[in-house]
Amino acid sequence: MEAAGSLGPGDPQPPGTAEGTAPMERSGREAASEEKSVGFVLVHAGAGYHSESKAKEYKQVCKKACQKAIEKLQAGALAVDVVTAALIELEDSPFTNAGMGSNLNLSGDIECDASTMDGKSLNFGAVGALRGIKNPILVANKLLSEAQKGKLSAGRIPPCFLVGEGAYKWAVDHGIVPCPPDIMATKFSLSAFRKNRRKLELAEKVETEMIQTKKRREVSENTNVTASLDTVGAVVVDHEGNVAAAVSSGGLAMKHPGRVGQAAVYGCGCWAENTSGPNVYSTAVSTSGCGEHLVRTMLARECSVALQAEDAHQALLETMQKKFVHSHFKASTRSCGWTVASNRRWCLQASKPCDLNTLDFFKWHHTTASDYPAIMYFIYFNYVKDIESFIFFDTIIIALCTLCILIMLVRAALF
Amino acid sequence: MEAAGSLGPGDPQPPGTAEGTAPMERSGREAASEEKSVGFVLVHAGAGYHSESKAKEYKQVCKKACQKAIEKLQAGALAVDVVTAALIELEDSPFTNAGMGSNLNLSGDIECDASTMDGKSLNFGAVGALRGIKNPILVANKLLSEAQKGKLSAGRIPPCFLVGEGAYKWAVDHGIVPCPPDIMATKFSLSAFRKNRRKLELAEKVETEMIQTKKRREVSENTNVTASLDTVGAVVVDHEGNVAAAVSSGGLAMKHPGRVGQAAVYGCGCWAENTSGPNVYSTAVSTSGCGEHLVRTMLARECSVALQAEDAHQALLETMQKKFVHSHFKASTRSCGWTVASNRRWCLQASKPCDLNTLDFFKWHHTTASDYPAIMYFIYFNYVKDIESFIFFDTIIIALCTLCILIMLVRAALF
Repeated sequence: MEAAGSLGPGDPQPPGTAEGTAPMERSGREAASEEKSVGFVLVHAGAGYHSESKAKEYKQVCKKACQKAIEKLQAGALAVDVVTAALIELEDSPFTNAGMGSNLNLSGDIECDASTMDGKSLNFGAVGALRGIKNPILVANKLLSEAQKGKLSAGRIPPCFLVGEGAYKWAVDHGIVPCPPDIMATKFSLSAFRKNRRKLELAEKVETEMIQTKKRREVSENTNVTASLDTVGAVVVDHEGNVAAAVSSGGLAMKHPGRVGQAAVYGCGCWAENTSGPNVYSTAVSTSGCGEHLVRTMLARECSVALQAEDAHQALLETMQKKFVHSHFKASTRSCGWTVASNRRWCLQASKPCDLNTLDFFKWHHTTASDYPAIMYFIYFNYVKDIESFIFFDTIIIALCTLCILIMLVRAALF
Repeated sequence: MEAAGSLGPGDPQPPGTAEGTAPMERSGREAASEEKSVGFVLVHAGAGYHSESKAKEYKQVCKKACQKAIEKLQAGALAVDVVTAALIELEDSPFTNAGMGSNLNLSGDIECDASTMDGKSLNFGAVGALRGIKNPILVANKLLSEAQKGKLSAGRIPPCFLVGEGAYKWAVDHGIVPCPPDIMATKFSLSAFRKNRRKLELAEKVETEMIQTKKRREVSENTNVTASLDTVGAVVVDHEGNVAAAVSSGGLAMKHPGRVGQAAVYGCGCWAENTSGPNVYSTAVSTSGCGEHLVRTMLARECSVALQAEDAHQALLETMQKKFVHSHFKASTRSCGWTVASNRRWCLQASKPCDLNTLDFFKWHHTTASDYPAIMYFIYFNYVKDIESFIFFDTIIIALCTLCILIMLVRAALF
């Protein structure tokens, strides 16, 4: 994960670093910077099984995504377009499970989910099980922007969520260039597919020798399909304080064709909501992990709601524990969660550029159920005006990870 | 809409009929009935533009759906299977916008959405943009029940949401018989499609003569596509007090292929949640109306949350006004809402059959924004042990309806 912000003037103190708070500190040079702030970007490359040997590549793609987003912010782009620019970089990377190099499904095809939400208009655009488009987030963004234009001819309501072949046709009709499916599969994703297919064949062979379903499943879990990559996402705050969030995913490895995960489902993959009153915070959230669990717990929206509490840190912690790890809405408690949050005051006057010194802190919360056999999370972020000075990098590998969640939250109060 | 319940013994008083409460009254004969209660069913045939001339047919199909469901309840079926049985009847009717006779999309194809939720397990199953399956709800139910069996081979997480071609293949692989698409289109739906296509061609012709987008849209709204039919749904309470909800839809007339509406989106099309504590109510909700607005307001879940309030009637009213009609999450306030709710105590001890005298009332709330040009809603319900004695029928036609919501809520407290 990577975070970047173009700082405002006169911000002497670093963001808070309380328990569960991300160690983001700005140098004196940065704090004293006279550069006009243009906003803030936070990106993540997913909470899946990232290879430690590719740490450098992950870091580079996150950094590049931040750079592209900051360039857009500096050019005065809207938050929702900035977050899309960041996602395009992440999708273009063969190292992430989004767009190029996504996980292959059971049929050996790539089908992607993506969505984006604009905190100002509260519009939402999503695509599910989309084939043949290199940047699914572009289609989600286009759906969102088209919907903002109002009704279609003959009073028809514009769609906010398209799937499959229909989504592909809509995208091409709206000027998005298609991409041959064989180009989207990379050497790495094809290799992972072949490995997973062998595991699946083995597991199903074992199954045929078992009569009892319960036993079958216990056995087959020892030859689990590995999810080498995971969902990517970003959250953005623009110079007017508007927030936006986006998420993109190739979905679970060896998923059934047509399966749609949280990255395309409203309230589950991402959430962005500008403040609507003096005591309400703007929030932007992007999630990563097992789509089915994230859908049923509606975690993106739940975290956004939690961050309105007086003690946001405690509320986040409780949300992750009660509404995700131990939620009644999913059968298994074998889950982990990770959050990053920020909550300083944020200027919302459109005519007044905001300073990043109004951004208080990024907070994370990581939960791991004691019976969870394995988890790997991969994080780095970079919180500077020139996207260089702060890097936090943390990897934890236990073993055999199946579920992992990465949540990013930006919280800002009315100025 | 139709409601049916097999009554329990010794229930002298009729359900309450306060402001906004449905006028459901049981006859003395029914109240004195010694028949053992088996549960409760409520179905609706959608909030769209129903033809008054077909009132009899709508009533019949709702009644038949209730009858089928009650038969299932009497046979001891689970709530989630009962609600599916009701939906199958509604989908099989050529008069409803679900399954057979659904609205055709822009390409002249039928693509259906459906979902179901089990209040006991909190499992959810959904299909979107599904072609060639007569009963989409069967696929949603199958997805839900397969997910309850636990993980798939090689530790894969079973899908809860499938769309398009992949959903079709999964359905056929799981024993659901496909249906040739030309059989699903009825004389009525084909006639409506041809009429809408002419309107669309006319509107687009007018558009080409207009330069300014804003003006174009103003003009084209005068030749709106009409949605002759709408989403159907049902809620069920079984003899153990478990709740379930389901929804099924052919979607908006002339929708873009691949468009998915609220009927397939978690928290938007239906919601069912058994009580989890002494002061929490079981709720079941099914929505009907414009999918995009119902998705963005997450109305099914919002109503379920509202019904936990001390004053459920007021909370429902406020929810419909604040979180739907005047919600920031949709651009237009041109919407109407309609709710039915019940909240007597409900027995949850699995070993003890519940009596319908523990079911307090069905409450509705109907909202119409003053600037909303037109609305038609079509309701009837039947609340008796033999599905005969009470019929409430109400139609309101103003003109040019575009959005309409029908929500059904069943609420029951821990015994």
